[in-house]
Amino acid sequence: MTDAGRASRPGGRTARVRTEVLAAVEAELAEHGYDGLTIDAVAIRSGVHRTTVYRRWKSVAGLLVDLLQAGIDDDWMPKDTGSLEGDLRAVNREVHEALTAEPSLTRAVIAASFRTLEAADALTQFWIDRYARTEIVVRRAVERGEVAPTTEAHQVVMTATAPLYHQLVLLRQPLSRAAADRYARTAAAVFALRPTATAT
Amino acid sequence: MTDAGRASRPGGRTARVRTEVLAAVEAELAEHGYDGLTIDAVAIRSGVHRTTVYRRWKSVAGLLVDLLQAGIDDDWMPKDTGSLEGDLRAVNREVHEALTAEPSLTRAVIAASFRTLEAADALTQFWIDRYARTEIVVRRAVERGEVAPTTEAHQVVMTATAPLYHQLVLLRQPLSRAAADRYARTAAAVFALRPTATAT
Repeated sequence: MTDAGRASRPGGRTARVRTEVLAAVEAELAEHGYDGLTIDAVAIRSGVHRTTVYRRWKSVAGLLVDLLQAGIDDDWMPKDTGSLEGDLRAVNREVHEALTAEPSLTRAVIAASFRTLEAADALTQFWIDRYARTEIVVRRAVERGEVAPTTEAHQVVMTATAPLYHQLVLLRQPLSRAAADRYARTAAAVFALRPTATAT
Repeated sequence: MTDAGRASRPGGRTARVRTEVLAAVEAELAEHGYDGLTIDAVAIRSGVHRTTVYRRWKSVAGLLVDLLQAGIDDDWMPKDTGSLEGDLRAVNREVHEALTAEPSLTRAVIAASFRTLEAADALTQFWIDRYARTEIVVRRAVERGEVAPTTEAHQVVMTATAPLYHQLVLLRQPLSRAAADRYARTAAAVFALRPTATAT
């Protein structure tokens, strides 16, 4: 591991192997779920030798943790559409697409988080990071004078996004994209300083 | 099974056995989670013979499904506090208590729903029933003139409750009772016909 670490450089062989292995983890997880995920299948799919996969990731849980870590390392940011409602709608459409995809990697990772503590912890860290990044939509709304500076950013983002997860993942019931848009609109409306069409 | 069915009467031996067994399922599930739930442990805890438990419930999943069915058969209704915000706050406090209890039966049942399809289906049916009952708080608000008759009742209840499930169960992060109250308040405010302190 130390040798591999010393030899690695951005875009080098180590980074390439990680990219290939994590792409295979995503595909296997989405297709077969956590119960169907095996190091052997990941090795075959990625074309990376199974000994390498075992040495570097140790276990199926280790692969999942690294997949979520890669999400934390990415440069995702919420779109800047010029309004709080627009920003929240864009976020909700991304969440909606991720949760209704067939197969859905996000649903598979959530299911895995109920199987192992390592996956649960990694998912919590991933979401803490994602929600912290998403809260910029509220800071932008404060700068535009759309909402009060005291507005609880986490509460706004949760009000918009939580119903999508609850309905699609826990209640396991359908939810249209129009409904996802509506939850974004009501979340924006409730915190707006000026009344909007929805709030009145 | 047919004999047992014929012999059963409300409050009779069959009903008593079911009550005792389901109480044991609740206790075992809350203490040890779905993975620790066994028919033998339920038999020992309830004092009901294991042969009876096997014959009537067949499997661990069968016990869980019947526990959720018993929830559908109960007479739970949301409290009538005289205002939409008060009603939603009372609902949210019940949800908050159920999700933050240590051990939490609700969290254990949710975890089980990611293990077997039977548990997932039974939980969906349980929640469809619970949400349908909860929506009366919106119909009462319509009658009081607090919200428009066209208000989407499911959307109101989801806006109030979903953030609690998302934060405590999926994000696995703390959420105070005061925060649960706040989500009830914003859900009531966004749909109110008259602006409230929160909405302005």
